[in-house]
Amino acid sequence: MNGAESLIRTLLANDIDVCFANPGTSEMHLVAALDRISAMRPILCLFEGVVTGAADGYARMARKPACTLLHLGPGLGNGIANLHNAKKAHSPVVNIVGDHATYHLKLDAPLASDIALLASHVSGFVRTASAQTLSVDAADTIAASLSSAGQVATLIVPANVAWGDGPDPASRVTPPPRPTVISSAVARCTEALRSGKPAALLMSGEALTDEGLEIAGRIAAKTGCRLICDTFNSRISRGGGRVKVERLPYFAEQAIDTLTGLATLITVGTKSPVAFFAYPDKPSSLLPEGTIHLSLSAPHEDTLGALATLSDELCANVPLPADLVTRHQLPSGRLDAMSVGQALAALMPEDAIISDEGGTLGGPSWGLTANSPAHDWLFLTGGSIGQGLPVATGAAIACPDRKVICIHGDGGAMYTLQALWTQSRERLDVVTIVLSNRKYAVLQVEFSRVGAGKPGPRALDMLSLSNPELNWVDLARGMGVEASRAQTADEFVDQLRSAIAGRGPRLIEAIIV
Amino acid sequence: MNGAESLIRTLLANDIDVCFANPGTSEMHLVAALDRISAMRPILCLFEGVVTGAADGYARMARKPACTLLHLGPGLGNGIANLHNAKKAHSPVVNIVGDHATYHLKLDAPLASDIALLASHVSGFVRTASAQTLSVDAADTIAASLSSAGQVATLIVPANVAWGDGPDPASRVTPPPRPTVISSAVARCTEALRSGKPAALLMSGEALTDEGLEIAGRIAAKTGCRLICDTFNSRISRGGGRVKVERLPYFAEQAIDTLTGLATLITVGTKSPVAFFAYPDKPSSLLPEGTIHLSLSAPHEDTLGALATLSDELCANVPLPADLVTRHQLPSGRLDAMSVGQALAALMPEDAIISDEGGTLGGPSWGLTANSPAHDWLFLTGGSIGQGLPVATGAAIACPDRKVICIHGDGGAMYTLQALWTQSRERLDVVTIVLSNRKYAVLQVEFSRVGAGKPGPRALDMLSLSNPELNWVDLARGMGVEASRAQTADEFVDQLRSAIAGRGPRLIEAIIV
Repeated sequence: MNGAESLIRTLLANDIDVCFANPGTSEMHLVAALDRISAMRPILCLFEGVVTGAADGYARMARKPACTLLHLGPGLGNGIANLHNAKKAHSPVVNIVGDHATYHLKLDAPLASDIALLASHVSGFVRTASAQTLSVDAADTIAASLSSAGQVATLIVPANVAWGDGPDPASRVTPPPRPTVISSAVARCTEALRSGKPAALLMSGEALTDEGLEIAGRIAAKTGCRLICDTFNSRISRGGGRVKVERLPYFAEQAIDTLTGLATLITVGTKSPVAFFAYPDKPSSLLPEGTIHLSLSAPHEDTLGALATLSDELCANVPLPADLVTRHQLPSGRLDAMSVGQALAALMPEDAIISDEGGTLGGPSWGLTANSPAHDWLFLTGGSIGQGLPVATGAAIACPDRKVICIHGDGGAMYTLQALWTQSRERLDVVTIVLSNRKYAVLQVEFSRVGAGKPGPRALDMLSLSNPELNWVDLARGMGVEASRAQTADEFVDQLRSAIAGRGPRLIEAIIV
Repeated sequence: MNGAESLIRTLLANDIDVCFANPGTSEMHLVAALDRISAMRPILCLFEGVVTGAADGYARMARKPACTLLHLGPGLGNGIANLHNAKKAHSPVVNIVGDHATYHLKLDAPLASDIALLASHVSGFVRTASAQTLSVDAADTIAASLSSAGQVATLIVPANVAWGDGPDPASRVTPPPRPTVISSAVARCTEALRSGKPAALLMSGEALTDEGLEIAGRIAAKTGCRLICDTFNSRISRGGGRVKVERLPYFAEQAIDTLTGLATLITVGTKSPVAFFAYPDKPSSLLPEGTIHLSLSAPHEDTLGALATLSDELCANVPLPADLVTRHQLPSGRLDAMSVGQALAALMPEDAIISDEGGTLGGPSWGLTANSPAHDWLFLTGGSIGQGLPVATGAAIACPDRKVICIHGDGGAMYTLQALWTQSRERLDVVTIVLSNRKYAVLQVEFSRVGAGKPGPRALDMLSLSNPELNWVDLARGMGVEASRAQTADEFVDQLRSAIAGRGPRLIEAIIV
């Protein structure tokens, strides 16, 4: 058994059986091993940002890692942005990067570079495999990906380690359990919630699972505290009568307004909130003056355990009635962010997965679907646009029986549009809604917010995508995805209904200008 | 004057007046400064790999740097692959990356990351600007970009440094001159060339300019030595009767065959040749056994000066007759790599610039155009595919009066296809020829060469782009570029003739299956 086979068998022993890949010459022995080992499912992507974003989306929905297969430093470079998003999502990713044969590296061939340095930018763990220890190196990488709330763990595999004799595959690794929250932290939160003063739980991570929301809902029912989630979360279970949470607004002043008046903000699976960007003369911390911050659990700690203990302490263990599921009325007339949201809230099927990179136009879709049938909502976690299409792709691989709906701004979608090809190739059941306003709309807003005044013609031109207009129907068809364009709410409703009724990838370009 | 303006005025004082940009919120003050300073030309790109590749192409043709404008760590991440290619091309690039305000960084906002670490992967120089020293920081960055034969120099600009008060702009910097080659190196080369034993100059960098080729041609005429260029060069001046050079083949065994029999290989502006990849049981050095390697000049040294001295020593200063310019006959019938090359050799206009990422199908285009009218040929220097379209874009900005022809494999073109939008927006005179064989053809070749045997159906599927077929006509039109498809040599000739006769971006999808 060569190293490539030893590596793949170690991955399979750890239930990692999906590999998002864009390989090159130095990874050919790993590709060859796929001929012999059919249990590993390779998913070819035509750009590495699709590889890494898909691995992120897969991990969010499968709640286990996929592996990647990337070609040398530049291939990893192309994957960095969505690994950044995966890191901020705490997604476990086993990030496999091929390298030159060890003896070849010192010659400084054209593709040589310091891969370990590059990987360290986004990885909680980096290891270069050696021939003797490859399977142990792989097992350590897998364990690391599952540690610390989930992280990107990079294994660099030199070509001669892949083609040389491999060690026996490693067996299943057991990642360390999440650290239990110390009782004094729970006690402080209990006291604050019992005080009768205004309090809120600011939640992310495990707190936004079915189980976490259920416990948080009971705590809120018992104590009157508010439930708020971070602005951008890896995944939130939602709809179908589940406990509802407010979402912290994106803009700093609105976020501070939302929190103002709270005596205590208790963070659960997250940290004290900070502004996405700094603005001149505005605070970067979102904690209002006079509000005390208490941490129930950090992202890497046992949030579900901490919530359960808190609930016990508060005697909050009373079942909650499920909330109602309602359907929004179908919109008509003008097509805008609101009517897109209304159509989605009217038509979203049971168990949908939403990959949301809607940017400035995504808000109503989130807001109007709170009472929709059960669904999961995946956000842009690290702020690096171009995540939505790849995450939708990975989520569809993880959950082939669920409809995935990707809501995407047109500017962001251009970074990783190659994901559509993989959706077509794998016949994934993804409906992509491109919200086409033909500008970097958020930047037109941010321009004045950072104190740069009103953009003049040259600056405005730099924030505009209208010269030339992108045609998303052509772009999608160019990659084998059926597509249509909607210019009214009625057209959008018809196209969305048809896309949801069908199977396989579809793209709807919603013209919102 | 704020920092943003101070920075831009320092760039302009150094004759850097083109900025390839994909900015975000943290760079809005730099965008705002463009309203006030019209001498800086901003070129919007919809993906950072286009930004950095275009800066590379611009530098190769303008022989001076452009600057980039990238958004935080992930924006730089997306630009890494083509910065890697720029680094290997020794292209001067002033790589400007925005960062969070300095006081905001410690809060670990979603987009925060260690930009300096990431930049160090591809940069010969990295500096984080401070408010007091911004213009000096910028001047140092510019000087660094022009040092060491040209390199990527990164300036990180925190948002508050851009929006705060800026220092006076710096004036023009003088980069250090290239080190002169020591006379003993010239003497050793002189002796070897005088010996009468078989010798060759292996050339790259400045040796492949008009002036370098002219001197090398005289040396060859005098001594009988062969003239060979590296496989992948930043730029080679060619055609129009210029001195011809052989090109070192890509595959190691063919390269060694090419060099076998030489007593001496003299490297000029490059280093001893190494294989692109390692292969089991094959040498990584391409220097044949028994061939002695002498270095006339390293890439960072004064190659033109060394060549002139060598020529003087050899008394080779005799003018050369110019070679003939000939036109190939137009091809007909089957469309393949050969007929594409024949059509190009028949129709290539005077002063064309070729951006070549033709991969396995590009060879004949290179080979058949040696006697064409004068042109410059730009290669994929660092092996990271997805360079060709951006480099063509930057070259067209640098040389608006010259026709740019980009020859691109379909697999590689998918990495940075967003370049087509910028070509349309800027009405660039670029003809893109996508060689569409619907596979990663080089990997199908490399598979067996690395000893992985014959690819089985699963491995072959991973190297195939036929499911679904990409439609480059749709993709181009989706970004506002006029496009057509050729399936025969006759169709290709008609389309290429029309594209060359016209102005503005055009794409021809050459179906070669």
